[in-house]
Amino acid sequence: MKKDKIMPRLYFKYGTMGSSKSAQALMCKFNYEQKGMKVLLVKPELDTRDDKEERMVRSRIGLVAKCKTISRDESFVDLYNEFKASNGCDCIIVDEAQFCTTEQINQLKQLTREVSVLCYGLMNDFRCQLFEGSKRLVELADSLQEIKSVCRCGRKSTVNARFVNGKCVDDGPQVFIGGDESYESMCYWCWQEELQKSKNSK
Amino acid sequence: MKKDKIMPRLYFKYGTMGSSKSAQALMCKFNYEQKGMKVLLVKPELDTRDDKEERMVRSRIGLVAKCKTISRDESFVDLYNEFKASNGCDCIIVDEAQFCTTEQINQLKQLTREVSVLCYGLMNDFRCQLFEGSKRLVELADSLQEIKSVCRCGRKSTVNARFVNGKCVDDGPQVFIGGDESYESMCYWCWQEELQKSKNSK
Amino acid sequence: MKKDKIMPRLYFKYGTMGSSKSAQALMCKFNYEQKGMKVLLVKPELDTRDDKEERMVRSRIGLVAKCKTISRDESFVDLYNEFKASNGCDCIIVDEAQFCTTEQINQLKQLTREVSVLCYGLMNDFRCQLFEGSKRLVELADSLQEIKSVCRCGRKSTVNARFVNGKCVDDGPQVFIGGDESYESMCYWCWQEELQKSKNSK
Amino acid sequence: MKKDKIMPRLYFKYGTMGSSKSAQALMCKFNYEQKGMKVLLVKPELDTRDDKEERMVRSRIGLVAKCKTISRDESFVDLYNEFKASNGCDCIIVDEAQFCTTEQINQLKQLTREVSVLCYGLMNDFRCQLFEGSKRLVELADSLQEIKSVCRCGRKSTVNARFVNGKCVDDGPQVFIGGDESYESMCYWCWQEELQKSKNSK
Repeated sequence: MKKDKIMPRLYFKYGTMGSSKSAQALMCKFNYEQKGMKVLLVKPELDTRDDKEERMVRSRIGLVAKCKTISRDESFVDLYNEFKASNGCDCIIVDEAQFCTTEQINQLKQLTREVSVLCYGLMNDFRCQLFEGSKRLVELADSLQEIKSVCRCGRKSTVNARFVNGKCVDDGPQVFIGGDESYESMCYWCWQEELQKSKNSK
Repeated sequence: MKKDKIMPRLYFKYGTMGSSKSAQALMCKFNYEQKGMKVLLVKPELDTRDDKEERMVRSRIGLVAKCKTISRDESFVDLYNEFKASNGCDCIIVDEAQFCTTEQINQLKQLTREVSVLCYGLMNDFRCQLFEGSKRLVELADSLQEIKSVCRCGRKSTVNARFVNGKCVDDGPQVFIGGDESYESMCYWCWQEELQKSKNSK
Repeated sequence: MKKDKIMPRLYFKYGTMGSSKSAQALMCKFNYEQKGMKVLLVKPELDTRDDKEERMVRSRIGLVAKCKTISRDESFVDLYNEFKASNGCDCIIVDEAQFCTTEQINQLKQLTREVSVLCYGLMNDFRCQLFEGSKRLVELADSLQEIKSVCRCGRKSTVNARFVNGKCVDDGPQVFIGGDESYESMCYWCWQEELQKSKNSK
Repeated sequence: MKKDKIMPRLYFKYGTMGSSKSAQALMCKFNYEQKGMKVLLVKPELDTRDDKEERMVRSRIGLVAKCKTISRDESFVDLYNEFKASNGCDCIIVDEAQFCTTEQINQLKQLTREVSVLCYGLMNDFRCQLFEGSKRLVELADSLQEIKSVCRCGRKSTVNARFVNGKCVDDGPQVFIGGDESYESMCYWCWQEELQKSKNSK
């Protein structure tokens, strides 16, 4: 066995909505920083805005930290080089990684020549289909790790069910910009029941 | 917590070429049968042939077992019902599951209302892109489990590199029907090196 | 396959000091409660005190919740029955589970006839030897899951190194009641180096 | 992050009797050898015999390979150095690792400075208590991985139940040298039922 130098790795830690992905990302950052390491925390922006200084990763349980944002046409390589120049950088953590582009995940893979990259995000949209970012992460990650959470029936939740006006739906745009929709993570079978109920009540 | 009846699960056990996926599938079948359970072993056919009685799952280490085959336009539901009628069925095991269609994986998911389904297969093709079957499995499986194997450099292999006439290539048809190509499972970085070498030697 | 009712499970989620075990326990509690379930959170007491109302599980990152405590001669069965009578109970979460007695872990195993039990704790003491509670958990848990954290060298930490007056030590009582000792989680090889350094400096 | 050289790792892959541990060990050996690497395969001897040339690792499914043996008073360091001198050595695989002594597991840990060590074995004896070797492996392994198998009821098996004259027993010597006993891997609850049945029939 050739004794190669260790390569840092690309991790994809996926879970349903409300499974504490953001909290896990923040704890991971905290743990690295406790050891004196520098962490670049990033969140994709769905739209391009200017006031990037103020972005935060927020978890439902109450943990919060400032983060960088990246829009669909920006590069992780630039973001990393800039951050590294002023701070050093031992690790990149990306929250909501399902919203990254294919190209951005390719960039993160290349950056694992230098640093570990931990991506947290959803695997599937509300129709049980991969996002652009999660698809590329499955293809390129060195390790896929599930962050588990519970369905209301006690089984593991695997589906991000969308409700519009109280009814469970399985079509519509992948990212909803309405505001009157809500989500509940469930197991596949409770989801199938909810969809059936909604169809019956039409 | 409502005490629901346990639902059998859909497993996707993925690994690179030569990682002993077929051997794992056969050992899983053996273990179930040792406990007196009935196992339906299936392999997708890429082309539709008639002589289906004679198909085998063969592992490189030497394990072999007869299997059913399924072509792209056939249904797992029919196959299961037929098998169950004459044998009973406690478990379905699918080898080379990456070649299943989206619809066939949907059928397997539905069948987990009754039996456990264990799918063994590749995650990525030689370009590091998902197959139709592996994509749908990632979306629907209850559990993703990696079957690890080693690259020639000692790191974990994650890529199925294709060589044509001794040169590593990253374009061409997903399933090659030539015969003069070969494959080697490698880590991403050894693969990148091989691709570079091939480009330089043109 | 006989279709048995699902049995809840006994989990042991182990990690080194500072790996966010308590934070994970609190997030797990939060996730269950978000789904409307009732969680009994417990911490073993090393000594028997009276003022049990005021105990807390505290994580370094800042999460906090009230918990029940249990001393070495008390029973989880009693604690569970009392809690269940007034609240209902869907899940028991134990922090610092390495300090439980063998008998208490046996009780938790029996309680998984009714509820899921998630134990968080250290696997090893500072000499790399199992605690009474972690030993019994390894023997009885349905699932062992590692909560990973990083050594100062970038590798995974697996050892809870004890320092007394700045020197790394590998003998002494399992639970130190002095106060002038400190701990650092490290990988085995950094630990060996520290021990060597301490021996050389005598 | 200091860029340390990668350290090979100590793995403990544990499972109940009949869970294909030996077959897994042999496939792992096969996979390494397919990549041109040299593997030292070892099995502890419970008694000290002379005819060591003829030892085999045999799996129930039919895979077989020659192996070295090691008795309780021999050292893995010597065995490794001897093997390495004549073959080179990239990896050590130990079957039935639960029978190793504490000191031998310590030696294997030290050898991971040079090569990866994969130990396959039982976690628990028929009383649900750790073996000497498995205890030390839990304390020192970098990674614990379960090899799952199924109970006759369809749940995961976690117990190695001993039957003497058809009756399930939970006391007696850890290693039985009688010959009229047999074993069945089961889940904890089927085991409890069998023990109860045996007690009632006395």
